[in-house]
Amino acid sequence: MSVIKLSNLIAENENFLCVGLDPDVEKIPDYFTKDAIGVLGFLEEIIQSTKAHCIAYKINFAFFEALGSNGWKTLEAVRKLLPASHFLIADAKRGDIGNTAQKYAEAIFGILDFDAVTLSPYMGRDVVMPFLEFENKTSILLGLTSNTGSEDFQLLTLQNEEYVFEYVLRISAAWGSPENLMFVIGATKPKYFYQVRKHIPDHYLLVPGIGAQGGNLQDVYEAGATEDVGLLVNSSRGILYAGSDRNFNSAAESKAKQLSSEMKRLIHQNKMK
Amino acid sequence: MSVIKLSNLIAENENFLCVGLDPDVEKIPDYFTKDAIGVLGFLEEIIQSTKAHCIAYKINFAFFEALGSNGWKTLEAVRKLLPASHFLIADAKRGDIGNTAQKYAEAIFGILDFDAVTLSPYMGRDVVMPFLEFENKTSILLGLTSNTGSEDFQLLTLQNEEYVFEYVLRISAAWGSPENLMFVIGATKPKYFYQVRKHIPDHYLLVPGIGAQGGNLQDVYEAGATEDVGLLVNSSRGILYAGSDRNFNSAAESKAKQLSSEMKRLIHQNKMK
Repeated sequence: MSVIKLSNLIAENENFLCVGLDPDVEKIPDYFTKDAIGVLGFLEEIIQSTKAHCIAYKINFAFFEALGSNGWKTLEAVRKLLPASHFLIADAKRGDIGNTAQKYAEAIFGILDFDAVTLSPYMGRDVVMPFLEFENKTSILLGLTSNTGSEDFQLLTLQNEEYVFEYVLRISAAWGSPENLMFVIGATKPKYFYQVRKHIPDHYLLVPGIGAQGGNLQDVYEAGATEDVGLLVNSSRGILYAGSDRNFNSAAESKAKQLSSEMKRLIHQNKMK
Repeated sequence: MSVIKLSNLIAENENFLCVGLDPDVEKIPDYFTKDAIGVLGFLEEIIQSTKAHCIAYKINFAFFEALGSNGWKTLEAVRKLLPASHFLIADAKRGDIGNTAQKYAEAIFGILDFDAVTLSPYMGRDVVMPFLEFENKTSILLGLTSNTGSEDFQLLTLQNEEYVFEYVLRISAAWGSPENLMFVIGATKPKYFYQVRKHIPDHYLLVPGIGAQGGNLQDVYEAGATEDVGLLVNSSRGILYAGSDRNFNSAAESKAKQLSSEMKRLIHQNKMK
């Protein structure tokens, strides 16, 4: 799915919510076994409870890999449960040289058939190119991330007075187009959205970090939205672990519904301006 | 295995060769089926043929993930075939925020029980910390990589006139010690080894890029070696695909032997100085 289809989904549904699937066996309700089978059952219910209230899902590969090859099998099973109507992201943050990147692309866009993948830009353009060669698929590069460690390198100042992350956005935007390239910009950094939009006014942003990490939806929208919204805001823990007992699914649904209502309100407010 | 044990292996064997296992189904001899089973058979013979001539193995995760969950199963099987006497590296280049990094660390150091893992530093310290908390395990951070795209961001100049990669080395060296932290420095960049050794005089370097990527062993040794060698030089394609017919294993053995002889010669030459 290209970014245009994501943009259409957002416009049609007045919704820009991505539900992040980070299934931690330590946190899923006791109703489920603490293994790959439990994770599958848990996520099946989460998907059923949230799909009417979001337009995208993001699977965090680490939580499956931590369960070994059974985890990877579960990842494949969860992928099959995800509705084709939604924008489906492999949150894998891969990044390696050309011949290796090609293999990661085959795994994620080929076998697993995700619409999009997160990539780390440290190694430069050959990390990204093999992914961009797939038609109707989207590469999502790390720009300015939501974690505290983002300050270590992304916010260094270059000789030309740009931040490293600004340079990364500006240069890598030229490797693709707003139709096949997006960027990760953390919700915890609204004060930098001005620089972000200076360099990439039209690109869609994947914005993690609301909820558990402390970012705020309204701040993000006001600082980063474009005329076409231009944002896909992710919530993982805030939805998955909204409840901890057998009612976890209705708690997740309520939380997703609450976020989607707030999104609709923000879009309407903006249209009235 | 900590870096001290790697250093002992190198001293005892006068050898600093790492064999990289990047099993491409398109490239393995026709004798093997072009699938996960063929890959396992191929690597079993490669390991048998090379283990006397190297002191480390590096498994490239992409080539297994490209085979789906069967590939991940094969990765687990190959891990079990690897000799415990060797330094075993998961070349996965993971890099994500703390709670996710924790899961990747459980997968790679816990379940798969590798000695070391490659990590991408773009997201900063919280990417690395959960890995450093494992005892007797080593984190190998990308510093200056061997690919052409390394020039895109790693060689940018900061306001303080350092290259980005220098700053990454200098700052991240403080997150651990030379006993649990190594850095990837590409063999194709010998002219930058001066800056590398200025910031990290004692750290072991994982050096990919000799052979297929054009780096040269002698140049690397002269530019980057310390009194304790301080280098682990990787060759993947040059060994794995040294032959393409049924004699691939003796071709791989010859190539590994040739590199290990050259390494011994370089170490002896240095001792005589």
